Amino acid sequence: MRGIDGATVGEELRRIGYAGNACPGFLTPHAYLELHIEQGPILENEHFVIGAVEGITGLSWTEVSITGRSAHAGTTPMDLRRDAACATGEIAVFVRRLAQGMGGQQKGTVGRIELYPNLVNVVAERAVLTVDLRNTDASLLQQADQQLAECLERLAQQEHVAIATRRLARFEPVSFPAEMVSLVETTARELALPCRRLFSGAGHDAQMMARLCPATMIFVPSVGGLSHNVHEYTAPEHLEAGASVLLNAVLRLADEVE
Amino acid sequence: MRGIDGATVGEELRRIGYAGNACPGFLTPHAYLELHIEQGPILENEHFVIGAVEGITGLSWTEVSITGRSAHAGTTPMDLRRDAACATGEIAVFVRRLAQGMGGQQKGTVGRIELYPNLVNVVAERAVLTVDLRNTDASLLQQADQQLAECLERLAQQEHVAIATRRLARFEPVSFPAEMVSLVETTARELALPCRRLFSGAGHDAQMMARLCPATMIFVPSVGGLSHNVHEYTAPEHLEAGASVLLNAVLRLADEVE
Repeated sequence: MRGIDGATVGEELRRIGYAGNACPGFLTPHAYLELHIEQGPILENEHFVIGAVEGITGLSWTEVSITGRSAHAGTTPMDLRRDAACATGEIAVFVRRLAQGMGGQQKGTVGRIELYPNLVNVVAERAVLTVDLRNTDASLLQQADQQLAECLERLAQQEHVAIATRRLARFEPVSFPAEMVSLVETTARELALPCRRLFSGAGHDAQMMARLCPATMIFVPSVGGLSHNVHEYTAPEHLEAGASVLLNAVLRLADEVE
Repeated sequence: MRGIDGATVGEELRRIGYAGNACPGFLTPHAYLELHIEQGPILENEHFVIGAVEGITGLSWTEVSITGRSAHAGTTPMDLRRDAACATGEIAVFVRRLAQGMGGQQKGTVGRIELYPNLVNVVAERAVLTVDLRNTDASLLQQADQQLAECLERLAQQEHVAIATRRLARFEPVSFPAEMVSLVETTARELALPCRRLFSGAGHDAQMMARLCPATMIFVPSVGGLSHNVHEYTAPEHLEAGASVLLNAVLRLADEVE
């Protein structure tokens, strides 16, 4: 994969003299454990201190570009409009209804909207928005993708607009090995820390490491479930609890190797 | 009214030495006629060359600010969100449904949307959007305003967001005197130019002049009904037809004064 400046990691490492002789992957880890804040509200709401992470949600990011026709907001009859802002509104409403309708671990978010020309008295000619769909189940995520595609096709006809999509990112869900999840649970229990299993709704390094070795994660509570917010906070005693579970789980894994 | 730099027209005229002795309004015009492109599709669609303008639509511009809570798009359960983008989508959909439901001359447009922080994987904390409502009937426009206010109140509760509004502009509809509208019609008929009566959906100087003297407007077709669009165009023969009606109507009005 090349960066937007055309660079690759290998070329850049050679350029600065940091490329070694070993090939990536020459070291196979025995196991991988990652400690993280939950970034969600479940542990706090249910009064748990430790989360044993069963897997990481799959993710599908789509950029949707809508092209309608700019027109005068006062003189253009409602039924002759090709309004990119209306189509955007319909998509935002649809994405939430889709996630709520599917239930379970399905999430759906329209986090970014840009209108052009973005003026009070002009019917929007163009809109660019993003749709973030996530599910821990690969086939359900695919189903959500499919339903979004059908919605966009329907809207293009109904709204007389052109709709183009661009995939910004897509990761399949990852399930961590049962023995790794149990290791976190057992360790937490021994430390008398209330623990529950859960899925991660955010992406983490562990989902990449899981291709190479047994992996899992340890979550600690996020106050108010807040993350991607300046008020993100985890209490010091919860940080300590997480670090203790990490230490003790690593010691157990080390015993296996010896 | 002061400008955003604190200036008033009177002060600035005095500052540059251009303030005369006469008070605004010392000259009362005998009548006021304004020639303009329609900026809408009606004349072209119905094969008329001249529009005799009966009045100007009233207009209500509202800026809506929504404050929800920024949160992680992957980890925040759908039912715990306070999503300013979802509320925005609901408003865009509502405004169109309102205008279509009321029918007649009612227009409704969401032309401007800004989300914050406007990122693919963050539930939007804040949104600022504009609503442009127009109607030729004062009480219907008031009714549309009222329905928007009720919608916002409902949404604030339903979406667990705070919604504040700011009036950006409001003009009551203006009706031009029947004799002025007839004058345009009669003049067009004498020139053998197909003419129909219509309302202006855009604001014009004539709506201010109508406070001072009998006023009306002469419209000529806009190709494709387009305005506020780089493809705005009126054929030269239509410009000429409009100028002829203006000239002949002014000559008639001048006869009255002599």
